[in-house]
Amino acid sequence: MGKLLIVGTMAFDAIETPFGKTDKILGGAATFIGLAASQFNVSSAIVSVVGGDFPQEYLDLFKERQIDISGVEIIPDGKTFFWSGRYHNDMNTRDTLSTELNVLGDFNPRVPDNFLNADILMLGNLHPDVQSKVLDQMNTKPSLVILDTMNFWMEHTLNELHDILKHIDVITINDEEARQLTNEYSLVVAARKIQEMGPRYVVIKKGEHGALLFHDDNVFFAPALPLEEVFDPTGAGDTFAGGFAGYLAKTNDVSFDNMKNAVIYGSTLASFCVEKFGTERMVELTGDEVYQRLQEFKNLTQFEIELS
Amino acid sequence: MGKLLIVGTMAFDAIETPFGKTDKILGGAATFIGLAASQFNVSSAIVSVVGGDFPQEYLDLFKERQIDISGVEIIPDGKTFFWSGRYHNDMNTRDTLSTELNVLGDFNPRVPDNFLNADILMLGNLHPDVQSKVLDQMNTKPSLVILDTMNFWMEHTLNELHDILKHIDVITINDEEARQLTNEYSLVVAARKIQEMGPRYVVIKKGEHGALLFHDDNVFFAPALPLEEVFDPTGAGDTFAGGFAGYLAKTNDVSFDNMKNAVIYGSTLASFCVEKFGTERMVELTGDEVYQRLQEFKNLTQFEIELS
Repeated sequence: MGKLLIVGTMAFDAIETPFGKTDKILGGAATFIGLAASQFNVSSAIVSVVGGDFPQEYLDLFKERQIDISGVEIIPDGKTFFWSGRYHNDMNTRDTLSTELNVLGDFNPRVPDNFLNADILMLGNLHPDVQSKVLDQMNTKPSLVILDTMNFWMEHTLNELHDILKHIDVITINDEEARQLTNEYSLVVAARKIQEMGPRYVVIKKGEHGALLFHDDNVFFAPALPLEEVFDPTGAGDTFAGGFAGYLAKTNDVSFDNMKNAVIYGSTLASFCVEKFGTERMVELTGDEVYQRLQEFKNLTQFEIELS
Repeated sequence: MGKLLIVGTMAFDAIETPFGKTDKILGGAATFIGLAASQFNVSSAIVSVVGGDFPQEYLDLFKERQIDISGVEIIPDGKTFFWSGRYHNDMNTRDTLSTELNVLGDFNPRVPDNFLNADILMLGNLHPDVQSKVLDQMNTKPSLVILDTMNFWMEHTLNELHDILKHIDVITINDEEARQLTNEYSLVVAARKIQEMGPRYVVIKKGEHGALLFHDDNVFFAPALPLEEVFDPTGAGDTFAGGFAGYLAKTNDVSFDNMKNAVIYGSTLASFCVEKFGTERMVELTGDEVYQRLQEFKNLTQFEIELS
């Protein structure tokens, strides 16, 4: 079993969907990644920053799951990063209503000593320079460095993003972002161009249309589980990344074949995340439920055509 | 091996895509279904109608593939059904520029005697009353009746469509049409409602996002093969249906598990169809190429998570 280091935001989210709205609830990339990865009982730590307004019960949530939060800096006089957004009726698009960086604006990440030799490094969506600062602190080269990013960084910090892309192994990105980063409509062509930028593995997340994993000439696809209804998509992409990284840390096997399984685990966990607001479903999720849904994924995708 | 009866249009198509445009070329639902099904060397026949302007070389194309065209009526003084359309840059949407029904307006289908006991009946997209006329002629109940339709018939002949839906086993329909037919956004809910209308099996085609097969509480998903570029989507849905029906006819096994394989064959053949204009790619397609691409589909979708 390998050690997993997670870097990303811990946040307050306020969410509106056609099904209702929330007050400020627990959110953030590192939050969803950490909760997903905790399903694998791996040794994990989060590097992040929060303000004095971040409730102790949220911090306890991670401790209960054996997630090391000694790398979560608390700025007593600061306020926690806040995001609010409203989803459209199709649940595939959303408007950001408000983004308050707060303590995230001066975030200076510090990796706990015990995780300077982590096997898997998951760089959640953040300013690429912050992601680089974490990568630079590692004592030993991780078996795998995974990076998530978004269109905002392509628009505002493209050079810094290209710098770090040279040093990572896997990028997770959504379909529109892959097109934006490459100016290519075809995801096959986009994935090839992104591989030329550095990462040998490219995961393209297509939301309700599943996820693609590209490596050299190989491609693997995991559908999203067809659901009766998507209640709140917030955190689904991070949950996918957390399941992907957590499974790889648990198995300590970064072969392409094992990455296929990691993509399936990521999709499986993401299918739970969207069933309730924010982290609600992930917090109550049991291993039996995950097992059951993996079986549904097998039924959904596996077939018996024999080719000699 | 079962016998396959195909009903549908034979047509001239004129197509514009971002890659170029064609003069009037061979098109039509029965054409694409028949060419796809011919990959399985099943005993098949087409029921259709064409005008005196339909070239002998097109008719010969079907004969060379051992497709019985004695049920293709030729109206010497009539003109063949004509459709022209223009695809948008995303290749997922298109404008119909022209539709000339011509001989299709008075189409009175007649099933050849030798196919009145066909095992698989594939009712291609047509007026539901024409589809019903074919179904009514059958001497014996086919093992499986598959129906394809489109939004036009929902808008203009909804009662007639509901009438025939009560008597079929499988419907193939695209995602937008499934939503239109049921007023449900969720495809899971839509598929359940459509099953209540008659067909026990519902195939929802999502174009570049693959296809879903629903039956009772079971669901199976086949992705579309990720392609560098889609050259012309015309006929892809019919090619999918032809591969689906052809495989079921060849194996003479209409179990859900075998239908999964049929969906994979349908997706595989459709992935070729879009590579060139019209029927061009399907006409030159070899068994070796199909075999090779099935292997790609396995690599794309099959994984090795053991669940005890």
